[in-house]
Amino acid sequence: MKTVLIIGGYGFLGTNILKYIDDELQDRFRVIVLDRFPENRSGLILNSVIKSYAGDFSDSSLVEKVFAENRIDLVIHSLSTTIPALSNNARYDVETNLIPTLELLRCMVRHQVYQIVYISSGGAIYGDWAGFPHKESDDVFPISTYGVVKLAIEKYLMLYAKQYGLKPLILRLSNPFGPYHYSMQQGICNVAIDTALSGKQFTVWGDGTSLKDYIYVTDFVRILFLLLQKGVWGEVINIGSGHLVAVNSILGLVKEFIPDFVWSYGSFISNDVSQCALNTTKMKEIIGDYHFVEMEEGIRSILEWKTKKKGRKSDGN
Amino acid sequence: MKTVLIIGGYGFLGTNILKYIDDELQDRFRVIVLDRFPENRSGLILNSVIKSYAGDFSDSSLVEKVFAENRIDLVIHSLSTTIPALSNNARYDVETNLIPTLELLRCMVRHQVYQIVYISSGGAIYGDWAGFPHKESDDVFPISTYGVVKLAIEKYLMLYAKQYGLKPLILRLSNPFGPYHYSMQQGICNVAIDTALSGKQFTVWGDGTSLKDYIYVTDFVRILFLLLQKGVWGEVINIGSGHLVAVNSILGLVKEFIPDFVWSYGSFISNDVSQCALNTTKMKEIIGDYHFVEMEEGIRSILEWKTKKKGRKSDGN
Repeated sequence: MKTVLIIGGYGFLGTNILKYIDDELQDRFRVIVLDRFPENRSGLILNSVIKSYAGDFSDSSLVEKVFAENRIDLVIHSLSTTIPALSNNARYDVETNLIPTLELLRCMVRHQVYQIVYISSGGAIYGDWAGFPHKESDDVFPISTYGVVKLAIEKYLMLYAKQYGLKPLILRLSNPFGPYHYSMQQGICNVAIDTALSGKQFTVWGDGTSLKDYIYVTDFVRILFLLLQKGVWGEVINIGSGHLVAVNSILGLVKEFIPDFVWSYGSFISNDVSQCALNTTKMKEIIGDYHFVEMEEGIRSILEWKTKKKGRKSDGN
Repeated sequence: MKTVLIIGGYGFLGTNILKYIDDELQDRFRVIVLDRFPENRSGLILNSVIKSYAGDFSDSSLVEKVFAENRIDLVIHSLSTTIPALSNNARYDVETNLIPTLELLRCMVRHQVYQIVYISSGGAIYGDWAGFPHKESDDVFPISTYGVVKLAIEKYLMLYAKQYGLKPLILRLSNPFGPYHYSMQQGICNVAIDTALSGKQFTVWGDGTSLKDYIYVTDFVRILFLLLQKGVWGEVINIGSGHLVAVNSILGLVKEFIPDFVWSYGSFISNDVSQCALNTTKMKEIIGDYHFVEMEEGIRSILEWKTKKKGRKSDGN
């Protein structure tokens, strides 16, 4: 039985990781959550969560308390205070993401906790479309301060692997979609469906033709645990489905479910990548054949979740 | 006539840049210096320096004052509060190097100053010897927090080039040697000569066989201005002589000048690179043929400077 600390455990990825552990791995993991929210917003009953710490990730005394009070075996760091498209305050990104992560790593080493999964970002790290899918060993040109900070964190993790024996697993994730995405600013599938359900008009950034790699969130979580199971440490690995989908196709799929859905086209936001494809050879070499959930199926799941959630709104959730 | 702000202008590289401007480019540049020291420690009379601001680079109001009071055309950023071999406080590095540089860049954009030369580091950025000279487009694995911060700054510079029209010239410098190196912790030539002159025994980190690229500081400065003259912006360029020299050879050369010089071997410091060779094809393609000063000649110059300096010590310098 391993104790895993999930930082940002009640966010989009965190909730999906929790749900997966609850559904599939309750005999192997118990979970401690550190999040700004005191409890999960999903309405799910999550038996594997043994403790929650609510507070600010920048509060290093809180982080210290978590490690002092618990014998942690593995950390999954899935927290970011900013998102790529809206990150334009470099200093804020450094102070709320980079420095707290450095304090976390110091704390881990002090408490002899070495295993850490860091959720990095394919799109934000690599930057503009280079004409071919980005490989892990490519030179990178982040086009947001969010991306620069993610890159710096990756490099600190690799440095501390060498200096302190840290065991980092760095996942450069493409664009995850699926249920439990609460953000109204990030995640095209999620935001489009929410807008469609509310009967409002959706605004596309750009002309909707740019292609990006999308991965169903449960596929991502499954792959994460496959990698953990194989004991892959000290690696940077691109995680994507290899399915490149245009925003217009996604909107079309949403419209199949919600025929009244309408959208218009607005100007492109320059610090989001227009196109993103990841070379996932390394991932595939490790996990072998894998069948990914299709976009349509994923959209159906999001829709089911959003509809259920709306039903629950009267319960105050 | 261009006004250049040199940040760290009274340090090793800064002083050599100032001296070169004074000797060769007085008709083209006047200089403003921002440094923790109020004046140059070299004893040189530097006519091109029109103003000095003494203070902490982290003091953003001081940086703002420099830009508010002067019409600056070009910034040369040659300041670091830490050195690779001794940098092991990641947070200190972020707070005293990264954040002040982000504030500097904000300040530049606000005052519509776009040209910036950033002195980065070949050894610290690339990390361990990969078996072949590092190219600018290689993936990098800094082995010190100093290196991670330098890399992050490079990436912010490239990001701001895209977002704000900044014109960065990023120089990944190998190991510069020459006069006006005041540090007693960095620069093997400098420290070895100083130890030799004081009659003490020198301690080598490691067995002294590792090869590194060394470049005479005046060659570096000349190349910097050649690149400026050619208007090369938005580029990362390795700057090295291509001469790989072992520490033992350097010590042997110092001993030729100071026969009493003795040294011993100590343990290797892990966050300094053991071997460093840079691929300088890009540099050579831009500047063409260039004849580099030999190590022996450079050591003679350092020795002359140190001997003159000692002579001046009675003047309180």
